Amino acid sequence: MLKRVDVRFILNPEDVKLKNPVFIEGLPGIGHVGKLVADHLVKELKAEKAVEIYSHHFPPQVMTKNDGTIAIPKNEIYVYKSECKCPDLLILVGDFQSISNEGHFELVNAYIDVAKKFKAKRIYTLGGYGIGRLVEEPYVLGAANSKKMVEELKQYGVRFEDGEPGGGIIGASGLLLGVAMLEGIEAACLMGSTSGYMVDPKSAKAVLEVLMKILKLDVSVEALDERAKEMEKLIAQIKEMQESAMQWKGDEDLGYFR
Amino acid sequence: MLKRVDVRFILNPEDVKLKNPVFIEGLPGIGHVGKLVADHLVKELKAEKAVEIYSHHFPPQVMTKNDGTIAIPKNEIYVYKSECKCPDLLILVGDFQSISNEGHFELVNAYIDVAKKFKAKRIYTLGGYGIGRLVEEPYVLGAANSKKMVEELKQYGVRFEDGEPGGGIIGASGLLLGVAMLEGIEAACLMGSTSGYMVDPKSAKAVLEVLMKILKLDVSVEALDERAKEMEKLIAQIKEMQESAMQWKGDEDLGYFR
Amino acid sequence: MLKRVDVRFILNPEDVKLKNPVFIEGLPGIGHVGKLVADHLVKELKAEKAVEIYSHHFPPQVMTKNDGTIAIPKNEIYVYKSECKCPDLLILVGDFQSISNEGHFELVNAYIDVAKKFKAKRIYTLGGYGIGRLVEEPYVLGAANSKKMVEELKQYGVRFEDGEPGGGIIGASGLLLGVAMLEGIEAACLMGSTSGYMVDPKSAKAVLEVLMKILKLDVSVEALDERAKEMEKLIAQIKEMQESAMQWKGDEDLGYFR
Amino acid sequence: MLKRVDVRFILNPEDVKLKNPVFIEGLPGIGHVGKLVADHLVKELKAEKAVEIYSHHFPPQVMTKNDGTIAIPKNEIYVYKSECKCPDLLILVGDFQSISNEGHFELVNAYIDVAKKFKAKRIYTLGGYGIGRLVEEPYVLGAANSKKMVEELKQYGVRFEDGEPGGGIIGASGLLLGVAMLEGIEAACLMGSTSGYMVDPKSAKAVLEVLMKILKLDVSVEALDERAKEMEKLIAQIKEMQESAMQWKGDEDLGYFR
Repeated sequence: MLKRVDVRFILNPEDVKLKNPVFIEGLPGIGHVGKLVADHLVKELKAEKAVEIYSHHFPPQVMTKNDGTIAIPKNEIYVYKSECKCPDLLILVGDFQSISNEGHFELVNAYIDVAKKFKAKRIYTLGGYGIGRLVEEPYVLGAANSKKMVEELKQYGVRFEDGEPGGGIIGASGLLLGVAMLEGIEAACLMGSTSGYMVDPKSAKAVLEVLMKILKLDVSVEALDERAKEMEKLIAQIKEMQESAMQWKGDEDLGYFR
Repeated sequence: MLKRVDVRFILNPEDVKLKNPVFIEGLPGIGHVGKLVADHLVKELKAEKAVEIYSHHFPPQVMTKNDGTIAIPKNEIYVYKSECKCPDLLILVGDFQSISNEGHFELVNAYIDVAKKFKAKRIYTLGGYGIGRLVEEPYVLGAANSKKMVEELKQYGVRFEDGEPGGGIIGASGLLLGVAMLEGIEAACLMGSTSGYMVDPKSAKAVLEVLMKILKLDVSVEALDERAKEMEKLIAQIKEMQESAMQWKGDEDLGYFR
Repeated sequence: MLKRVDVRFILNPEDVKLKNPVFIEGLPGIGHVGKLVADHLVKELKAEKAVEIYSHHFPPQVMTKNDGTIAIPKNEIYVYKSECKCPDLLILVGDFQSISNEGHFELVNAYIDVAKKFKAKRIYTLGGYGIGRLVEEPYVLGAANSKKMVEELKQYGVRFEDGEPGGGIIGASGLLLGVAMLEGIEAACLMGSTSGYMVDPKSAKAVLEVLMKILKLDVSVEALDERAKEMEKLIAQIKEMQESAMQWKGDEDLGYFR
Repeated sequence: MLKRVDVRFILNPEDVKLKNPVFIEGLPGIGHVGKLVADHLVKELKAEKAVEIYSHHFPPQVMTKNDGTIAIPKNEIYVYKSECKCPDLLILVGDFQSISNEGHFELVNAYIDVAKKFKAKRIYTLGGYGIGRLVEEPYVLGAANSKKMVEELKQYGVRFEDGEPGGGIIGASGLLLGVAMLEGIEAACLMGSTSGYMVDPKSAKAVLEVLMKILKLDVSVEALDERAKEMEKLIAQIKEMQESAMQWKGDEDLGYFR
């Protein structure tokens, strides 16, 4: 039986004994910026899967994999026991957010509950900040659930712009900050500026670099860099096509005057 | 954990010891009339926050503030212990109504429950009555859950028009009257006539003036007055622009006959 | 507090002591045929209100009445203790059906529960059968939850047409038959043929006449008759206007040939 | 009373004593392929009804039958006690899937619960794989919840194509595989390729033939064959009509050059 929100512990929080862990969320969203960073961290840190979360609020379907097997929608929380200056980490990744409004609240309750069971002291949610045009040099916009944390983040180059993002922060990245506030857990959202039109590994890299500074963490950014370069090639090709299309259209127009 | 409807008492009703308090609701709605009045009262009376209400029926997001911190959707109930002829007050304010149909009922149940815990004897819900055109001299339309209260309100200049508003009263302002009726609590809705196209502080002032007479309450209306004047300037500008646009169009049309 | 489905008994079933009562449902639907018949019966029989049903599945609003008071959406069940050959009656009337899919099931569960508490032996649900064009001589289409009842209804002139209505019977009128079947209660739906475009008292009269034969009941049909005549006048006027519009258009067209 | 998901056992699993039964699902879906196969099996095997499932997640209505009686939406599970090499079978059939997203999960939970009560060891879900054009020679695409089962199915000619169907497998046919995986029950989905535009008995026959090989089952396919032939005639007629319409259009076009 799959419960409405079904949290399954693969590792027992009491056995894992994380030390003041930081909880990082990177679910799908604008430019998939948060997801790119969190997936990258799980891979680079070889983090271990600790929790699986299934829910009636995910789409009622399974996905098909290349080997003929299927996957049921789920989110996962990985743990990383630090061997460096970086704190222990809990990393929430997955392919889905709730498809219903109420479901967002129920899932965020579950995420917070897991964070508390592992005694997380801080939460960083990762996302994109869509600005509607191509971003050459992405920066990181912040929002936090305490003024103290706002000040702290400014020191890492995180920008705070009056009331931005104007439409608020929707979904898990936003609600986690709100519910954490009510639970007395410090939390901030780091948003990489991005067009909002496509998956953006360059913006993800900007977020990752800030996050590494904050966490005193050092992982290779090569994989994101490569995806960013591929993406830039693709964008360059699209631009070129657009320009030659305009050129061609220009030639045609001139034709009327010959 | 955030419950489906999560009522958190900051002040204990038994400690506050209100005396036959009147419950006032001013949530967002037509012309934001009710919200303007209720927010104004909280500010002018320096009312104290007594209750916070969170809910899965609010939008699944947080709002961003100018200082970089966030706010999770919530409604609030303030208390005012009267030192004049006015009764003690409970004032419900906030930025949201339910985004689901069922949620309206669940939230209104919670509001009524708080009202009863504070032993409220009466409820006034505040709103706008949209008439689809600019209103020079707004008046206050009423609806009540008892004939006695209808008669009483008429003496304060509240108008009752056959079956108006024709579409009923939607959301908390309406349902509070209905559920209060079933609980044996007298309740009325005061609606300021308004275009329905924009925030209307002038209509709010009209409602506030009636409410002050009813409650034998005296607060400055200056802040609403100022907002009303700003709004009128804005409307005058828009009208001028429309007229000059029509003028210009008129000139152009005449051009055909020169 | 208003429960999700909130059934409030005004009369105690054990005190009322109905004798094998028949349960009649007439909620809003196609042509308001069922509602017209049930409201008419309640009025003519001076039936007594026994139950009020409130629900989160009704629209989240109150209606405004001409005297300035409000009404919260509710359905009602009236009882009629027979003094003639007719059986005792329970009559379900109201202004709303569920506005959510799931709500229909929850409300029908409640209706069936009331029917059982009053020991109802049979259920007749009343509705319209929309055929998409004006009906001069409405007839009554039937559907039942037992073959025995189908045969019985045929003797009263109720028609059964292969699989009609083709789209099934939606809402309380249909579901009541289905859930009653599972509870071992005989139930049938009587549908007056109607255009489906407007309130149809003539179709309601046809249904009422069949119902009176079935129940050995005799009530005046005058009120329905009068509403039917008013409706016919209205339709005649509309037709006349349409014809003169066509006439006028015809004249205009001829103009080209003069 | 009809529960939200209402599972009613007609036969007691402990009395029926099935031996390692295989659970087969064939509810409505793409091309009604799964439903055609499952209904065919129930009929040919004279399987016995064991379970009825009602739900608030089905449409809030009843269907009308040709004899004037009604049917409430329900799904059914039939049992077949094998007298040949084929394993015992449980066959899920019905006219509906959930009309809400959450309902799919609740219903699949119920199906899995029944499967477990009858001690089912395997699940096959049946469906269509829509490819957007007419299919002359339908084949069977597979997906499974274990690699072992993928390999096994390949031996029966079931095809596995990288990540197909690309959009995943939606509804009961998909979710059953996912939830079964979490319960440790092997499950696979067999999808007949089909246009997706119409009911496809030919595709159903292709699925049935693979399923018979897998289950070492032998039933007549005559009924599906006949329906497939009727369908092909119908398609041929439509094609002919289209061609003559094009021919006629061609003649007309040529007319310009005469």
